[in-house]
Amino acid sequence: MQKMQLYKDEFLAFMEEKVRMKEPENLYGPILYMLQLGGKRMRPILVLLSTEIFGGSYKNALQAALAIEMFHNFSLIHDDIMDDAPMRRGKTSVHEKWDLNTAILSGDAMLIIAYKLFEDYEKETFVKLAQLFTETAIKVCEGQQYDVDFEISDDVGVDKYLQMVEYKTAVLLAAALKMGAIIANASKENTENIYEFGRLLGIGFQLQDDYLDVFGDPKSFGKQIGGDIIENKKTFLYLTAMERSTKKEAKQLLHLYDLAPNDPSEKIVAIRTIFEESGAAKHTQKEIQKYTKMAFEVLDKIAIGPDYKEILKSFGEDLMNRKM
Amino acid sequence: MQKMQLYKDEFLAFMEEKVRMKEPENLYGPILYMLQLGGKRMRPILVLLSTEIFGGSYKNALQAALAIEMFHNFSLIHDDIMDDAPMRRGKTSVHEKWDLNTAILSGDAMLIIAYKLFEDYEKETFVKLAQLFTETAIKVCEGQQYDVDFEISDDVGVDKYLQMVEYKTAVLLAAALKMGAIIANASKENTENIYEFGRLLGIGFQLQDDYLDVFGDPKSFGKQIGGDIIENKKTFLYLTAMERSTKKEAKQLLHLYDLAPNDPSEKIVAIRTIFEESGAAKHTQKEIQKYTKMAFEVLDKIAIGPDYKEILKSFGEDLMNRKM
Repeated sequence: MQKMQLYKDEFLAFMEEKVRMKEPENLYGPILYMLQLGGKRMRPILVLLSTEIFGGSYKNALQAALAIEMFHNFSLIHDDIMDDAPMRRGKTSVHEKWDLNTAILSGDAMLIIAYKLFEDYEKETFVKLAQLFTETAIKVCEGQQYDVDFEISDDVGVDKYLQMVEYKTAVLLAAALKMGAIIANASKENTENIYEFGRLLGIGFQLQDDYLDVFGDPKSFGKQIGGDIIENKKTFLYLTAMERSTKKEAKQLLHLYDLAPNDPSEKIVAIRTIFEESGAAKHTQKEIQKYTKMAFEVLDKIAIGPDYKEILKSFGEDLMNRKM
Repeated sequence: MQKMQLYKDEFLAFMEEKVRMKEPENLYGPILYMLQLGGKRMRPILVLLSTEIFGGSYKNALQAALAIEMFHNFSLIHDDIMDDAPMRRGKTSVHEKWDLNTAILSGDAMLIIAYKLFEDYEKETFVKLAQLFTETAIKVCEGQQYDVDFEISDDVGVDKYLQMVEYKTAVLLAAALKMGAIIANASKENTENIYEFGRLLGIGFQLQDDYLDVFGDPKSFGKQIGGDIIENKKTFLYLTAMERSTKKEAKQLLHLYDLAPNDPSEKIVAIRTIFEESGAAKHTQKEIQKYTKMAFEVLDKIAIGPDYKEILKSFGEDLMNRKM
């Protein structure tokens, strides 16, 4: 994975060069702060990787990579307001460090600057990138709204949940890969397939996230185990359990999801047991495997050299095993 | 001005047809609500008018007109959050009717949908419209930030204020007119001049707004007279008075701008007197006339028929006399 590290380093150097402080400082300061908070830079790395996979130079992909990182961070700033989150990547979130108004406005500006970054491409490419970006960004907003809606709805099925996950998380990964294909002038088929690979992997990734939140290893997961249960989040595990459990179990699960105890450890154990006994845990694992397998099947159809296929495959595996 | 009414009617019919309710309703509901709140629809009308002036059909301009109205309403939703404004056009503002999160997210979606609306144009036109839109939108964000900054800064000069006004208000009017020129394939010179006409008129319009807020006729102004004084806003009148008044007057003005009396009528009278005696009122009127005159001089240079020139001129006059 030396390539991935190279792409990350090159991206970070480009970003540092490109994104500079300017006036008004209260608008651009928060943008710089947010972009410099760190993170895996997964989306921009994927743009660079995908461009090279399809025969382009990653140097041509840096602007698009920054656009997608800009968009991702716009959505994080606004999401943090919506979730009232005081922290982001271990640091103070923008609306906490500055204020609500600054966070709204600098988020807005990042969304617009993302479009600006496509302008260096030639017309044909600009049009394709901007249109893909718009289509993706609308889905991300819709996914975010579904996520908010689901928290107060009693009528969320697994299908709707999967659509939410696709829109909120998977399409941006897919778009990152597709942007590389567009920049490198890949064939229509390859372009569609690399998108599909990212989409399927992205859904699998999010289901894995739901699973690990309950059953993961506290040392490697990085977040608090049981966090979704504490917040009564309607995850894939929860929705599957509701569909598959006996009436009695379902009633108990509903009841448990009404509680907010000071010490949540008993609640977590009780719900974990229902997830296991209802078969929801096993089913979730199966679904994760299903999406990962489908992603790799699509990957097989893409006409690229075996080296690059291997890189994409190990990226997918690392992602699913949380090594990325 | 029958033409203007025709454009408005056609625009509203198009918008009603184009913008429909869809899922998720908590995202698209607020967008519909906001667009249907009314307003003069000045910006979309200008896109249609400008397209016809330069020999195009207004029917080709409807998508771009809706994009600019979409953007304008995105900015109103987010501005209303920032100003904590409970009302908009006599109705409940979006964050009051729904909540903060819904207002942030549906505003974000409107900004993205605006870009989507350019996609029906052919590539060349799409690129020009999208780039003009991006450039304008960034300036509007910067202008909004300067406006926020100025409220707490002691170091605002008239020049900076004029730049703020240009960015926050004038460039969007200018861009509306330029979009028409782009759609109608006007010459480069005409395209630049129509933008400049809108920019100058927009600045004059905003200075006029500052002036009427203090010296306007309560019956025709539409807003509360003295509103800016009550809010201690650093308007063109205030900044000019600070620059032109004696030390004693300036000190008194600073002192008055520190007060927030329950009954502001005495404060308004005192400040109005300083605005008059310092010469700020006269100077502001002169500047309004200067910008209006410059706008009409640019208009003279535009190579269009006398009928259309007359329409633009009377639009400008109506705007400055608050008949529009």
